[in-house]
Formats: sequence, C-alpha cells, structure tokens
Amino acid sequence: MIHEPTFSDIQDTHRKINPFINETPVLTSDKINDIYNGELFFKCENFQKSGSFKIRGATNAILNLAHDERINGVVTHSSGNFAGALSLAAKTQGIKAYVIMPENTRKIKIESVRNNEAEIIFCKPTLQAREEKSEEVINETGATFVHPYNNYNVIAGQGTAALELCKTITDLDVVISPVGGGGLISGTAITLSEKIPQATLIGAEPKGADDAYRSLKAGKIIPSENPDTIADGLLTSLGSRTFPVIQRTVSEIMLVSDEFIITAMQIIRKYLDIIVEPSAAITLGAILSKPNIFKNKRIGLILSGGNIDIDTFDNLIRSP
Amino acid sequence: MIHEPTFSDIQDTHRKINPFINETPVLTSDKINDIYNGELFFKCENFQKSGSFKIRGATNAILNLAHDERINGVVTHSSGNFAGALSLAAKTQGIKAYVIMPENTRKIKIESVRNNEAEIIFCKPTLQAREEKSEEVINETGATFVHPYNNYNVIAGQGTAALELCKTITDLDVVISPVGGGGLISGTAITLSEKIPQATLIGAEPKGADDAYRSLKAGKIIPSENPDTIADGLLTSLGSRTFPVIQRTVSEIMLVSDEFIITAMQIIRKYLDIIVEPSAAITLGAILSKPNIFKNKRIGLILSGGNIDIDTFDNLIRSP
Repeated sequence: MIHEPTFSDIQDTHRKINPFINETPVLTSDKINDIYNGELFFKCENFQKSGSFKIRGATNAILNLAHDERINGVVTHSSGNFAGALSLAAKTQGIKAYVIMPENTRKIKIESVRNNEAEIIFCKPTLQAREEKSEEVINETGATFVHPYNNYNVIAGQGTAALELCKTITDLDVVISPVGGGGLISGTAITLSEKIPQATLIGAEPKGADDAYRSLKAGKIIPSENPDTIADGLLTSLGSRTFPVIQRTVSEIMLVSDEFIITAMQIIRKYLDIIVEPSAAITLGAILSKPNIFKNKRIGLILSGGNIDIDTFDNLIRSP
Repeated sequence: MIHEPTFSDIQDTHRKINPFINETPVLTSDKINDIYNGELFFKCENFQKSGSFKIRGATNAILNLAHDERINGVVTHSSGNFAGALSLAAKTQGIKAYVIMPENTRKIKIESVRNNEAEIIFCKPTLQAREEKSEEVINETGATFVHPYNNYNVIAGQGTAALELCKTITDLDVVISPVGGGGLISGTAITLSEKIPQATLIGAEPKGADDAYRSLKAGKIIPSENPDTIADGLLTSLGSRTFPVIQRTVSEIMLVSDEFIITAMQIIRKYLDIIVEPSAAITLGAILSKPNIFKNKRIGLILSGGNIDIDTFDNLIRSP
C-alpha cells in the first residue's frame, strides 16, 4: 500500500488476513465496571497468535509482497513483539525471515523467533547499529524490509483489531489504545472514524516514554531519548506515517506512570483472570490515572498483548 | 422439563438463555500443543457470567418457572458456584432467591451471593442440616427448590457449553469434562452424542472424591464420604438424574491427583495466561496423568470456571 489506508482498505485487509489470525474475545467484568462506574470492554489481543496484535500487520505486509519479493524474504529489526509476529507470519506463508536483534535481547524473545525458523542476526544495541545491519542484510539477500509500524500495510493490519471490537460492541463513548510507534493507534483511528465517529480516541503513553505527547504538543515528531518504563513495547517513537494520522484523529495522549500500569496489571489479573504485559495494561492505567473523566462512559480498551514471562510478571506485581 | 433432555431440548435451551450468558472463547496454545503432541481446545467458562458454567443451568431453571412459581422465588443450597450462579440468574430475571449456605462458607462466596441480592440462610455444615433448612424455607415461602445438578433444566443448560464448543471446533477426537455432581458432563454427553458422535467423552474426577468412578464400576450410585481434594467444586456425588446419562455415555472416568491439578493450573497460567480454579484445571490434569493416550488427538477441554481468589491461587501453585 503506497498511501495511508482508508477504512475500506482496513476492511479488505481483514478479509485477507482473517484465515491467519484469531478473532480475539472481548471481555468485561461486572466488578471492574462497578469499581470504575463505567462499562469497560477489553479487546483481548493477548489471546492473539504470537501473543500480540502485531501478527495482524505483519501478516498483511507479507500477503502484499510481490511474487519476486516473496522469494527473497523479509527483514525487520525488533527486540520485541514485532520480531515474534513477523517471523511467525513469514513461517505461516512459507517465506524466509531475517530478524536483526540487539545482543542484549532477552533469551525468551530470541527463542520464540528461533522457533519460528527465522534467521537471527545480532547487532549492537543501538538504533544506528540496527539500521546498518538491516542495510547489510538487504544488500546481501534482497529481502524486503518491513518496518514494525511506519508502514501502511502494517497500519492497515493493526486497524483490524478495532474493526472486530466495533463489530462486537457497536456503541462506545471512548476507545483507549496504547501508543508506542503509533501503528496500533493509527489503524484504530481510521477504523473508529468510520465505525463509531462520535467516539473519542485516547492514546495511553508511558510517562517515561512520552514522545507522542510531546510531538503532538510541538506539532512535529520529537523522538524519545533514553526512554525508561516497564512498558517495554512502548519505547519506540512515532514515525512519519503514524504521526499525521495521530495528529488528525487522537483527542488526547494521557501519560501513565509505571505505578498505575502495575496496579492495572493487578486489577486485570484479579478481575479478568488474565495476565497481560505492561504495554497492554497501560490502557486501564489511563483510567486509573483520571477515573472521573471516564465515569458512566462505555469504553473500549485494546489489551495489545500478553507477552511477559511469568516470573517477570510476578516480580512486577509484587514490587512495592 | 420432566424428562431427560434431548439434543433438541439443549438447542432450544441455548436459544432461550443466550441473551443472558456469554458465548465464551475457545483458546489454544501452540506451546501446549507442542508439549503434549496434540491439539487442545480449551472452552473457557471461566469467562462466563458468575465465573462458571453454572449460570447456564441456573438461568434455564429460572426461565422455566411457571408464572406463580416466579412470584415465590427460588431456593437452593450451595456453598459454591451454583449459589453465585442462581442468585445472579434470579436477580437478572427480577425474582427472589434464597440460598442456604453452611456457616463455614468462605467470606468471598457469601459476599458474591449477597451482592446478587439473594437472601442467605445459614445452617450447620452437614447435608442433613442443608436439606432440613431447605424444607423449612420452602414451607415458609413457597419458593421452588432448584437442585444444583440433579435437575433436568439444569442439565439442559449445562449442555449448551459443549454446543458452543462444537460450533467453534467441529471435529474432536476426545472431550474431557470435570465430574462433580454430574450436571456438566451429562449435558455435555447429550450434546456430543448428536454433534460429534464419534468423539470419546472422558470425565475427570479428583482422586479424593472418586464417587463417579466407583459408582460406574459398581453399577449403582455410591456417594462420596468425606471427600478430600483441592477441587472444591467437585466434592458432590452423582444424582439420580445424572448417573444414568453418565453410565450410558461416558467412556472413562479418569482419577486425577491434586498434584496434577496444581501442575495443570500452573501450565494454564503460563501458556494460556489465564487463572482457573482447580475444578477446571482437572481436565488438563487428566492429560498430564496419562499423556500417551492423548497423543495426536484433537481434544476439547471444558474449563468450567475461574472462581478462586488470587491469594488462594498463589498459595496453591507455590505449594511444593
């Protein structure tokens, strides 16, 4: 796709990727609704293949490769969910994937990419090293680079999670999406503006990685420097293809502290009986931060993923 | 319903109760499938209203009350999930519920019934005391007694969980259901014998509450005496309306130790990212007990509920 996706592109994308993804459930909890005086609908992408919504965009990017591009495979750089998603999507479609990962990537993430039969190339843990290594791999192999979010096919794929949410719950006052590089919230915005145009779209961003908040204020992209948050899926900064969509459609970026993210993980475990990663719990964290503005509202929350190993989870929710 | 429900009764029941229950998701985990060399499909009744499948049967019992019966309300005795389910179903239908509970019932269970606006009547923690108190309440109030499982409307309701499972997954080799009083497995059996007649139905029963196992062997109901297991939803013994169905349809009752139930709770938490009660995890516990007989099979597991408070859960899975 060489232009920003329209709503009808997202519908087409959903039809295309549908055989390869899960239609994830939307959960509610009467107790959570009682506590927060609202109706909260959690779109559970933690139950998605690869453990996060990223498989949607990754699958769409691969299905849109030209025949000769399929032969040479795809390459991306990621230490997190997109690496797992692209390698799984590539394996499913029978094509080769190269994944550039920083040397300090956690073992569990390396293993999941290796299980998906991708070729892993390690590099120094800097953006410059990642990009140089990607260039090298592209030159050597002819593989097509798939950016984790600054890519219109990826954005169209990510918008299909909201499409399913709006099919299940047709009237929402607010939708809250996490903001990292902006792929998920951009796709969500495009879907929402057609399906529930009166709904307010709020981005939930970690206080310690507040580039979207600052970029919207400044009217231009201001990348994060040394971001510091437990929401390890939201360390990235907005890109040239996500920023304009966010500028046009997002009502507010709410900054959420790590403390509220942890409390949200506890509440989600306690009342929804599920385990999600910090980058997903941040959506409920936004409500915890300012409960009053969400009173009596019908709220969709995109629980973006569940990729956290159980020891890390236990340690986090037990930290004081 | 004055006769054992047929498959078409279960279909009718599903249409009736559908507005008042969740269609719960069916989850899978590639990692679990890899470990056990099979395809496991978990029907997640832990995400059901009231936290367990029991709301299905309770709702159906209430929807089948005659007009004058509705006026006087319903009564049951239960310290567990059926108390929560019947009180919620009654509240939803705007009728009065009386729940007889043993004095030693855990606070969290009492609170959930109280939140559903049921009238709680305490009694000594013996079956005799429960039954006498029920008689008293019936005589005083004219309320209709709803048995937690030995009731055809309840059995028909419980069979709707398998109906949804068979809609999602059409070809299964095996279905595993927990066995307590036998309501869930009886309903499951009736559904299965029509929808996937070639599938084997296995009951998973705690070693410390093995009345179904012994009853099937003996050819007559042999109630449990002093059952002892962490699966607190499976302490009850088969009834006159569930035993004949089970005798006719269940291929095998597998006895599962508390150790395997705990390991199953850990695996379900680790790979499905959800928290279920011991009485639900026992289905996977059956596979852990005899992994070889399930190899290369497509297996449906009914995760019956998620009602366990988080501290109890944490203590259980950390016990050596």
